[in-house]
Amino acid sequence: MAIDFIADSPGVTDAAGFAAGAVACDIREKNSDRLDLTLVRSTAPCTAAGVFTRNDVKAAPVRICVEVLKSGAPIHGFVANSGNANACTGPQGMHDAQMMVARAARAANTPTGSMLVCSTGRIGRLLPLTRILHGIDHAATALGTTPADGRHSANAILTSDTRTKTCTARFSWQGKTVNLAAMAKGAGMIQPDMATMLAFICTDAAVPTALLHELLREGVRRTFNAITVDGDMSTNDTVLLLANGASGFDLGAAPAEARAVFARALHQVCDHLATRIVSDGEKISKVVEVVVRGAPDEAAAEKVARAIGNSLLVKSSWCGEDPNWGRLTDAAGYARVGLVEEKLDLFYDESPVLLAGTPHPENLERWKAIVRQPRFRITLDLRLGPGAFRLLASDLTEGYVTYNKSE
Amino acid sequence: MAIDFIADSPGVTDAAGFAAGAVACDIREKNSDRLDLTLVRSTAPCTAAGVFTRNDVKAAPVRICVEVLKSGAPIHGFVANSGNANACTGPQGMHDAQMMVARAARAANTPTGSMLVCSTGRIGRLLPLTRILHGIDHAATALGTTPADGRHSANAILTSDTRTKTCTARFSWQGKTVNLAAMAKGAGMIQPDMATMLAFICTDAAVPTALLHELLREGVRRTFNAITVDGDMSTNDTVLLLANGASGFDLGAAPAEARAVFARALHQVCDHLATRIVSDGEKISKVVEVVVRGAPDEAAAEKVARAIGNSLLVKSSWCGEDPNWGRLTDAAGYARVGLVEEKLDLFYDESPVLLAGTPHPENLERWKAIVRQPRFRITLDLRLGPGAFRLLASDLTEGYVTYNKSE
Repeated sequence: MAIDFIADSPGVTDAAGFAAGAVACDIREKNSDRLDLTLVRSTAPCTAAGVFTRNDVKAAPVRICVEVLKSGAPIHGFVANSGNANACTGPQGMHDAQMMVARAARAANTPTGSMLVCSTGRIGRLLPLTRILHGIDHAATALGTTPADGRHSANAILTSDTRTKTCTARFSWQGKTVNLAAMAKGAGMIQPDMATMLAFICTDAAVPTALLHELLREGVRRTFNAITVDGDMSTNDTVLLLANGASGFDLGAAPAEARAVFARALHQVCDHLATRIVSDGEKISKVVEVVVRGAPDEAAAEKVARAIGNSLLVKSSWCGEDPNWGRLTDAAGYARVGLVEEKLDLFYDESPVLLAGTPHPENLERWKAIVRQPRFRITLDLRLGPGAFRLLASDLTEGYVTYNKSE
Repeated sequence: MAIDFIADSPGVTDAAGFAAGAVACDIREKNSDRLDLTLVRSTAPCTAAGVFTRNDVKAAPVRICVEVLKSGAPIHGFVANSGNANACTGPQGMHDAQMMVARAARAANTPTGSMLVCSTGRIGRLLPLTRILHGIDHAATALGTTPADGRHSANAILTSDTRTKTCTARFSWQGKTVNLAAMAKGAGMIQPDMATMLAFICTDAAVPTALLHELLREGVRRTFNAITVDGDMSTNDTVLLLANGASGFDLGAAPAEARAVFARALHQVCDHLATRIVSDGEKISKVVEVVVRGAPDEAAAEKVARAIGNSLLVKSSWCGEDPNWGRLTDAAGYARVGLVEEKLDLFYDESPVLLAGTPHPENLERWKAIVRQPRFRITLDLRLGPGAFRLLASDLTEGYVTYNKSE
């Protein structure tokens, strides 16, 4: 069964029954009319699943989402803001996040406890709550289902992103059109578990809660959880998946074939957004696919891939388009999974660097051409076992440092 | 008992019975007359101990040192070169390192198997062996014990260091003068276990081998192993400690009081060199002491300290003199040692940022003044247990990236 995949779609409004409204409430306190708050509402009640940061320090909205999802209550949507993460804000921050979900439910005319909340931006500052609550009321009056409404919503969640990140996957099943429509924001701190990223996936399929959780966990695993920009992990990472059944398609009652299509569509959505997030990482110039295979197990492969993808020396050399493979093996070595230098096969794209640990410097000019590309692949085979992992990483530029010197 | 401590001393020639010679053999192949190889010889046989990188990928000279030390043979000195790490160089690299120690013993007229070897520089390239072997012969004829000889030797081991790193600790015991005289090189990749650093400590005390190993391990633990510049760990890290007994002082026969003085002197030497290595990290502008206490145990404290000290966002904000404490708690949180946000005490120098998790923004101007200093301290108390760790870290600058884009 064919899946239509639309990159840069209008986003969440592509799923039937979802309306979005976005407003500017100057959360950054810069007298700006930049959109910074969005409300998304489903007319029908949704099942919902979330995957959140594993940071010990969890922002207030993350804690509220976990509570709301635990309650098992039907979900009707979410409110999200950029400019302030409401993280490290203590009891006042929890209070503020609670006020946001309560106000969102009231403004959107949905039951109490039916709204989720996400925040992203600077850590350690209290929200400008009065403006935010007024903003929620305003966003509720602006709710709409046009492509423009979806696009405005995708805009309102951005921080240092340079562009919106949206997509839609669509398929038909027995005359019913099923949509998975999504928006995300990323930028710095993209590791190890999705850091400083928010993603919202809305589907008009009906999906039982337990199945929804399982599908989301699997969808996130090799996509949002396998990207890195700077190795940091945020306090606010959240991926939400809402299913409202408006298409008339019920995944719980569907045969295995239909389930597989849905899972594939979800993977495509997650993979697309995750890739866009790395490509739009703060001031990056290269996207590098780090493939590690032949590790003792998958965890070891992941450790090696992350050591390479997060090494400052490696990332600097990518920025400089220098095929400095010594830094790759050095980084692989300090992951300390027991690699044996004499066994290593290493490649830039398809060009061998090491075969059984022996360098092939005759390929140097080829490597130079490869690392000049905006995107290339490094494959390291440890030849020890079946473990494999693929990490999407970025380089490190002077611009990253300049940008992050102060927020 | 008083210890005289001399920073920027002549280095290894300060210890009785140690002679040094340094030569230029253009290892970098740049037609340069920069000193790049040194030979250090003790007239009397030495006991010796070494601490080495824990990277899975160990350079050939590291492997040779481990073998030589394992043999238990008396040691008479070492040869060290900069410009080429002889790492990831396969069987040819092992052969070359073996040739270096054999030639060093012959040229210095000491027994076969009595020499150690260290290399530092670019990874993945074969040594220019012929020039190196001639250089060793030449260095042997240049051996001398003047301060100038020591200083030339300290110069020859540098890579991207901007200055030599030497010191001497000296004390008297029953009329005998005991010296611990040392030189080191550092720069990038200073983490987690000493990375891309070489340190050579020569003492004219006599010290039984087992005791020497124990003393060195303890001396390295909270000094060379508690510094970070970029979080990378090199294939070549080595700290060597040679004891020739030329002072007539025998630590093995000395009372506990004298042993304690020796241990203190060794700690001073290691601490001084480690601090100098961070201060001279590649293109850094700040040295930051990260003190974590109240962790469940020391390992947890170290994990949190390294998460903070290696966070790109934290390091960038240090460079920008921005007291962005939210990034500190974020990094601490993703170390995932089970910290509880509501318990955290956090300080810039002595100024409270968080007390029991509550921010004290009234101190903002004070924090700004603190982070403008070239050196300051961050203290994070998790208030969970007795574990503590102190890490010396640096900021991340645009200059670091520019410098490391290509080697």
